[in-house]
Amino acid sequence: MPCCGKNRGEDGNQSEDERDITSRLEDQQQLINNSSGDAEVSEDGLINTGMLDTISQKYESLDYDTNFNSLLLDEVRSRGYKFVVRKDVLRWVVMFFVGILTALVACCIDISVEEGSKIKYGFLSWLTEKGVTDNALWMPYLSWVGLNVVPIMFGSFLISYIEPVAGGSGIPQVKCYLNGVKVPRVVRIKTLVCKAVGVTLSVLGGLAVGKEGPMIHSGAVIAAGISQGKATSIKVDTKTLPFFRQDHEKRDFVSGGAAAGVAAAFGAPVGGVLFSLEEGASFWNQALTWRILFGSMTSYFTLNMVLSTYRGYTGQLSNGGLLNFGSFENATYDYYEIPLFLIMGAFGGLLGAIYNHINYRLTVFRMRYITKPWLKMLEAMMVAAVTATAGFLMIYLISDCKSIGNDPTENPIQMYCNDGEYNVIGAIWFQTPEQSVRSLFHDPPGSHKMLTLGLFSVVYFLLNCWTYGLSISAGVFIPTLLTGAAFGRFFGTVLATLLPEYFGTQHGKYALLGAAAMLGGVVRMTISLTIILIEATGNLTYGFPIMVVLMVAKWVGDFFNEGLYDIHIQLAGVPLLGWEPPPLSATTYASGIMSYPVVVLNTKQKVGEVMEILKSTTHNGFPVVDNPMTSSITGKPSLGKLRGIILRSELIIMIQHKIYSELYHEWEGKLNIGLFRYAYPRYPDIDQIQDQVTPEERQYTLDLRPVMNPTPPTIVHATPLPQVFRLFRAIGLRHLIVTNDESEVVGMVTRKDLARYKVELQDGRVERTTMHITEQVE
Amino acid sequence: MPCCGKNRGEDGNQSEDERDITSRLEDQQQLINNSSGDAEVSEDGLINTGMLDTISQKYESLDYDTNFNSLLLDEVRSRGYKFVVRKDVLRWVVMFFVGILTALVACCIDISVEEGSKIKYGFLSWLTEKGVTDNALWMPYLSWVGLNVVPIMFGSFLISYIEPVAGGSGIPQVKCYLNGVKVPRVVRIKTLVCKAVGVTLSVLGGLAVGKEGPMIHSGAVIAAGISQGKATSIKVDTKTLPFFRQDHEKRDFVSGGAAAGVAAAFGAPVGGVLFSLEEGASFWNQALTWRILFGSMTSYFTLNMVLSTYRGYTGQLSNGGLLNFGSFENATYDYYEIPLFLIMGAFGGLLGAIYNHINYRLTVFRMRYITKPWLKMLEAMMVAAVTATAGFLMIYLISDCKSIGNDPTENPIQMYCNDGEYNVIGAIWFQTPEQSVRSLFHDPPGSHKMLTLGLFSVVYFLLNCWTYGLSISAGVFIPTLLTGAAFGRFFGTVLATLLPEYFGTQHGKYALLGAAAMLGGVVRMTISLTIILIEATGNLTYGFPIMVVLMVAKWVGDFFNEGLYDIHIQLAGVPLLGWEPPPLSATTYASGIMSYPVVVLNTKQKVGEVMEILKSTTHNGFPVVDNPMTSSITGKPSLGKLRGIILRSELIIMIQHKIYSELYHEWEGKLNIGLFRYAYPRYPDIDQIQDQVTPEERQYTLDLRPVMNPTPPTIVHATPLPQVFRLFRAIGLRHLIVTNDESEVVGMVTRKDLARYKVELQDGRVERTTMHITEQVE
Repeated sequence: MPCCGKNRGEDGNQSEDERDITSRLEDQQQLINNSSGDAEVSEDGLINTGMLDTISQKYESLDYDTNFNSLLLDEVRSRGYKFVVRKDVLRWVVMFFVGILTALVACCIDISVEEGSKIKYGFLSWLTEKGVTDNALWMPYLSWVGLNVVPIMFGSFLISYIEPVAGGSGIPQVKCYLNGVKVPRVVRIKTLVCKAVGVTLSVLGGLAVGKEGPMIHSGAVIAAGISQGKATSIKVDTKTLPFFRQDHEKRDFVSGGAAAGVAAAFGAPVGGVLFSLEEGASFWNQALTWRILFGSMTSYFTLNMVLSTYRGYTGQLSNGGLLNFGSFENATYDYYEIPLFLIMGAFGGLLGAIYNHINYRLTVFRMRYITKPWLKMLEAMMVAAVTATAGFLMIYLISDCKSIGNDPTENPIQMYCNDGEYNVIGAIWFQTPEQSVRSLFHDPPGSHKMLTLGLFSVVYFLLNCWTYGLSISAGVFIPTLLTGAAFGRFFGTVLATLLPEYFGTQHGKYALLGAAAMLGGVVRMTISLTIILIEATGNLTYGFPIMVVLMVAKWVGDFFNEGLYDIHIQLAGVPLLGWEPPPLSATTYASGIMSYPVVVLNTKQKVGEVMEILKSTTHNGFPVVDNPMTSSITGKPSLGKLRGIILRSELIIMIQHKIYSELYHEWEGKLNIGLFRYAYPRYPDIDQIQDQVTPEERQYTLDLRPVMNPTPPTIVHATPLPQVFRLFRAIGLRHLIVTNDESEVVGMVTRKDLARYKVELQDGRVERTTMHITEQVE
Repeated sequence: MPCCGKNRGEDGNQSEDERDITSRLEDQQQLINNSSGDAEVSEDGLINTGMLDTISQKYESLDYDTNFNSLLLDEVRSRGYKFVVRKDVLRWVVMFFVGILTALVACCIDISVEEGSKIKYGFLSWLTEKGVTDNALWMPYLSWVGLNVVPIMFGSFLISYIEPVAGGSGIPQVKCYLNGVKVPRVVRIKTLVCKAVGVTLSVLGGLAVGKEGPMIHSGAVIAAGISQGKATSIKVDTKTLPFFRQDHEKRDFVSGGAAAGVAAAFGAPVGGVLFSLEEGASFWNQALTWRILFGSMTSYFTLNMVLSTYRGYTGQLSNGGLLNFGSFENATYDYYEIPLFLIMGAFGGLLGAIYNHINYRLTVFRMRYITKPWLKMLEAMMVAAVTATAGFLMIYLISDCKSIGNDPTENPIQMYCNDGEYNVIGAIWFQTPEQSVRSLFHDPPGSHKMLTLGLFSVVYFLLNCWTYGLSISAGVFIPTLLTGAAFGRFFGTVLATLLPEYFGTQHGKYALLGAAAMLGGVVRMTISLTIILIEATGNLTYGFPIMVVLMVAKWVGDFFNEGLYDIHIQLAGVPLLGWEPPPLSATTYASGIMSYPVVVLNTKQKVGEVMEILKSTTHNGFPVVDNPMTSSITGKPSLGKLRGIILRSELIIMIQHKIYSELYHEWEGKLNIGLFRYAYPRYPDIDQIQDQVTPEERQYTLDLRPVMNPTPPTIVHATPLPQVFRLFRAIGLRHLIVTNDESEVVGMVTRKDLARYKVELQDGRVERTTMHITEQVE
């Protein structure tokens, strides 16, 4: 929803019997109606689906600033220091449970996938051997296709029909949430269920997917649910923890949940903390970070304990159990390898940029043509069938045989190999992508032929690229690591062939660095990824090469396009704010980016007038001003001095609970901050409550002063954009009021006003572009 | 310096011939003079040295907000995008050199200490053996005392006479700097030299000290020097990188330098990044963090390379060379050990609290009575002699013998042991504390007797406590780790004696956890310490126990007092701002904490008037207002509408370069932002330049508008303290102007106004206290 008149507003259905509202209101209405003509469309008159420079209307902002209204101050005064301590202790308790529950969900996914794939690939390898013997290879082939398509059908159904926001890896959604964008339904229980079940089915369906992104998203949902003490989807409200029902408190927990998810997905508690910070935090807070680390350590510990027990390591906590990429023995590297690392990084960045470009075109195609749920399901099932076909063809056509015993693989198939040998391709395909990554990292030198690795990396690259963005719940980390590991191992094998005395036994290292390069090139994360890879391989020695490779990959990739998550976020039209203001924006002033005119309210306003404004605008925040008639000393028309800001939700709650001045005796003592917290975060719509207000009550007065935020942050109109940006970002604002010298409201800056402004550089010229704001983008 | 009149101002020497300044100025002067009577003293009329609730006048703030004045905008307009890119590339280049130079300084310290102690302790052990044979033990004893006292004499001379700010570990100073406090001379070349040479002498002097803190401080100085392209102490100004001559740019580099120092000191690049963030960062910035990681990785790599080469490991980068605590083989722990970890943590927290209390009393004693430099030197030399005596007595009195070959030690002494055996105590004392820590972590089970360990930990605890705060350059990390390791190993030995089947071989692990507990109890850092210890031991497995131990130690310690660094910062009266506003401060408003009245300037003001104001006040920022005579529409007296803020330094530069309106033709085209940057950070005093201004020039006009910051952040007087605090902290402000509804300046909030306000809780009552502001505190 836009905040201000300049943005595209909706025409209100102004009924004839409401003619008694003030003329100022009418003027405002007029302004809103006029400005609807501004709606931006592409040259051919249609909203151009799949443009990178659109911002969707459907995303609202979260509000991380505290409203220090008199109700809050009453609470502070009356509840005292014990309340502060109690809240603080409860924050730790909540984080503890977030860690445990996240780990348990991760365990369920993990064990289901492990057991399911054991059965699936065991059956398939048995069937393949039988098919070779019986000369009936159609049997294993069709079974493979079937065993891929059926789980994907169910998994895709969950996403296409039940909860689309649970699709994909979940990392972009969590990133947006932490950035301050309210992504609808992203932290609901239903989303969690679809996500967790969906990702299990996706991995079982044999696609080029991982379960790590969804685990991170799951952690975020769990944190949101526990911290609020309620889950509206399943109609549970424990009525506990009401003081955490604020955007900024909830966001802190969601950061912790995401970190716990990373800890569970990669066995990387520190990586989890850094992930939360890299993706979300704007103001670093020591106590919060410490709680996040506590949550992710708890998650790591719980997961480790459960999986250790499940896999039969009892008692000892430190070994076994943990999901990781295996540790490297005798890890070492030499000076002369550093140029090779640079080359690998550059190549990874290039591959990543190509990947992102292909996926971008594909996503735009999907947005334009694959819009029906059944079409989405069909595409997912098709990819599942093609994946099986590609695997089968590779196994059938390439005869890369190795003697059994040299290489640890669970389901060796012989195919056309000699007795005592097994098909290497089969060993790669007949396991989950994660197990394949581990094979490529740790298989002894000479396990794979160059041709096999080269072909596999190309095929997997394409499959991976096609898979991401399907209507299924699936992460992109693991398949990208697998593609990169194959290409890295290919590189290592080439080196070993050329210079066997130097690189004869370095395959695993190059597989690891290839994986890092490819992942860095695709997602362009750097700090957290370095730590995650270090923690997942349990090896600090490779920290420096991994960092070099990731850095070069990011630089090279950034030369061509943006990271995969950012591309998807832009395509979805999310008004994400970066870390820094756009370059060269210092010569642009707040007056140039703000929305105006602004719909304002008086400190005391008739109920009917407020309802009319709520119905006729879609704004979320309304500056509250002194009655303008009394303050125009200069004789010029004036909007009145700023007294505060009030949110739509607060007005709705006031109307719903009939907090009218005339009924003071009825709500006296009832008006407290809890009223607003219990309704959080899903407030009723004005249409839902308007019938509760009698015509007589419409003439009553709403006194906004106890509820409004009396000291909202403001800027003057001459403030340069970088300063506006930093203030907005550092404090985590939703609305920033622009005033003139007389403290009169002249405009409002919202997230969309900042997000839609960027400096574009073309052919050496500096161009200022504003993005299109549209409601068409899904 | 205070910013505003309510603080203690200095009386100006107002000369008689200046009577033509406006009456407003006189009023302001009057206010300033009156308010000097407010100076706060203790009840007995004396400034109470060693109070925890004082704020010293000598600390100024750094300014991390950007002044978007028209000169900056001119630069942005004229230099374009290439300038942005160039600055960004240069930031990376600077960080690269910071990493390399920090590592080289660390290498010098490291190698000097290593070679020096090899000679010293080799000689001493030879002399001891000779003394036992000749029955002349006074010989090794006196030599030991001499070899301790002489280096300490030189080391202490450097700090007592040449550069006191180079004393101690340097971490509190860096912490204050990153927090936004300008600690005088903290990032100068002279400080670096004293620090580096001083710490080498301190470690060689055999005190209970480490070299890690000083390495961190060294990194910070190096970063400040390189990024500014000049070193005023040695009169070098390369005139390059002028655009980095701003507080916020410099601070970013100093963060990176500190991180590089941690990386070099502990071999912990990630720990370095987290240290910088935990201690300093307020607004987390992805690009900055990434550069910090790059700097610390470079430092780690360089140090590793140099030390590897020095120690004869050639070629391979990954092993050897690095300063660390050795890696733990077969690291593991069991469920039932978790309660033991909790107990260790609690005990460490308790010990830490006792340590901090003793050291606090000692520091107050020192502040009151050991004030002369020669006394400081004498105390340091005395501690050196006592340390040697304590070590000698332990070796002489306790006969803890072990057979040679069971335990790796460089300088075994036999003393009264049998042939083929060596004295264990001697082995601990005849090496640097760092090597002793490694011995306690990795000596095989049974190397040390319980009595030895117990006695050693008590003796070392006391020595360590006495040593910290001496007038020498020395860190507290390593001796605290050593104390903790001894106590932890004692604990482990007790467990092994009681339950040999469970804890027979766990001594090293308990030594590590004991070290963590003690360090956590003393310094109360958590996140970065966890990572530093993980990286320094090269072991991820113990991450969870280390975290548990650190957390419990912090909680227990915080129950009694604050961390060691914080105590020293408070004693020094530094106005440090915490992460969060004081609890329950929401009911306090900006009007209650601001300084007022404020000395303001007009947009155009006579040179003589400005000089008079600069001489008669010590303020650093002056709000610029419209001429108040023209704006008082309401008939009430008014201070004029806020137009901007100008800094003392900017006024001085304007006067120095004669930027007077009447001389426009002379400076036209010369006035650019470079003028202000080249003078940064040491601007001349007003007394130094007043003779350059002729009486005629005093009548000329200064037009402040092109130089002042036209859009300073402002708040209204009713803003609650937490909101003021967050704004101040998140943006990194130095001055925050308080206005009324009419945009008139009514007050000013500075760092000291916020720092001196805290909520104190006594006997369940909430008390609001303000700190004393004093100039007496050193």
